Amino acid sequence: MSTRGAGAALLPERGPAPGRRRLRIVVAYDGAPFAGWQVQAPGKRTVQGALESAFARLAGESISVQGSGRTDAGVHADGQTAHADVPAPVPTSRFAAAAHWPGALNGHLPPEIRVLAARWAAQGFHARFAATGKEYHYRVWNSPALHPRERGRAWHVPFPLELGRMREAAALCLGRHDFGAFAARRGPTDANTDTVRALHALRLTRRGALVTLTFRGDGFLYKMVRLLAGALVRVGQGRADTAWIADFLAAPRGPKNHFLAPAEGLCLRRVFYRQR
Amino acid sequence: MSTRGAGAALLPERGPAPGRRRLRIVVAYDGAPFAGWQVQAPGKRTVQGALESAFARLAGESISVQGSGRTDAGVHADGQTAHADVPAPVPTSRFAAAAHWPGALNGHLPPEIRVLAARWAAQGFHARFAATGKEYHYRVWNSPALHPRERGRAWHVPFPLELGRMREAAALCLGRHDFGAFAARRGPTDANTDTVRALHALRLTRRGALVTLTFRGDGFLYKMVRLLAGALVRVGQGRADTAWIADFLAAPRGPKNHFLAPAEGLCLRRVFYRQR
Repeated sequence: MSTRGAGAALLPERGPAPGRRRLRIVVAYDGAPFAGWQVQAPGKRTVQGALESAFARLAGESISVQGSGRTDAGVHADGQTAHADVPAPVPTSRFAAAAHWPGALNGHLPPEIRVLAARWAAQGFHARFAATGKEYHYRVWNSPALHPRERGRAWHVPFPLELGRMREAAALCLGRHDFGAFAARRGPTDANTDTVRALHALRLTRRGALVTLTFRGDGFLYKMVRLLAGALVRVGQGRADTAWIADFLAAPRGPKNHFLAPAEGLCLRRVFYRQR
Repeated sequence: MSTRGAGAALLPERGPAPGRRRLRIVVAYDGAPFAGWQVQAPGKRTVQGALESAFARLAGESISVQGSGRTDAGVHADGQTAHADVPAPVPTSRFAAAAHWPGALNGHLPPEIRVLAARWAAQGFHARFAATGKEYHYRVWNSPALHPRERGRAWHVPFPLELGRMREAAALCLGRHDFGAFAARRGPTDANTDTVRALHALRLTRRGALVTLTFRGDGFLYKMVRLLAGALVRVGQGRADTAWIADFLAAPRGPKNHFLAPAEGLCLRRVFYRQR
């Protein structure tokens, strides 16, 4: 989920190899049936794996798909962005128009994944390294009964939430902070990772039973949105106060927040780039 | 789906039998896994059947559940209304408070059905015969690719729709008309049914790719909403004009409209009663 990985500065921002053209795509998916975005051990269904299979079917050769970042198992996307370097000229001339790719790819994808748009990438575009920010929604269904429509799409929180308290806590998180206490470790090397991120927006809105938390920032650490959502719900429930949040921000190498909101409430809404 | 069945005037508006109390409930469901609302041959999963089983588990005896009307297989509900005459005093004293019923029923229901609210019915309340109107939403996803989130919840219409034309046609349908050309027959006796209904509202709104048709009226004939939605989409597509709609309204015993929008886009939003 990290946009600004420590490796970003070390890796060259490679463009497509000679004889290839970079296609930029916007992808929506229902995360429920997938073991996350990233290709894993064989036998695990992943979004990246399904996209690479679809590209391979169309291009007649193996093509790697690079996303803006990973999403975990069960996490949804409305606007994940990715790129793929396809052969140029492409085997079938109709694929010379970027607009032909979404329909063709969707014909080889399961209905839980849809390519919504495609265009040829501008010079220097890279789905991961050119990303300047992301927006996520975290959806909470705050009512005694979970509406059938919201199964797998929202976190069911049956007890009352005080949004005023949550907004106070959210305001503390805004801006540039070391979010080390709101990050899970991916592996042993992660300990040295830079955990400073800028959170540009953290809005809470309620519409009936649906409480939506909107996060916008320059990059997000592994599980950061879900750890922030989990902590904010704890505050809204009256089981923790804003000082508890402030302490985490003041001591990023201290104890971590362990209240992790479930994956199904999270949706990657947009990825921002300097190149439009 | 008909609220104002021809039988309404013939059947007495029975209240609960002595020793019973009428519970009025609001129910939401995802229609996908059900063969509709109404109990059918054994082995068919129905919403009414699931509710009656849940009541039986709690009351220790068979209890019938009366809905405001049927919904077809695959049709959803946000606010179906029903009643059940439960033993009074109920076996366990905590059920004396209507507010305890939703949680208790939900504990015996599949997650695709949730009882959202319950209260003791006012004198004369009957879920079907006291209904004065209904509101439905019909959802159309109007974009080349169906968003994964909308699978089973909207009709995917990939070709462009002219909403202006659809609104002109919708305006013709407003008010009191014989909607015989927009009704399917349930059985041989249906031919004599009064097919005059008043449509109080038919609004079309677009938000991105989602086009929502809101229908509000005093009652709806069998498949009437889906037949109207199907006809309006045909007009929006430019394959029929408003005169085609006007002809159906002018000749209710003539040829019927055969363009039926699929069940998954339909949702029963609210049932209206004089008693609040």
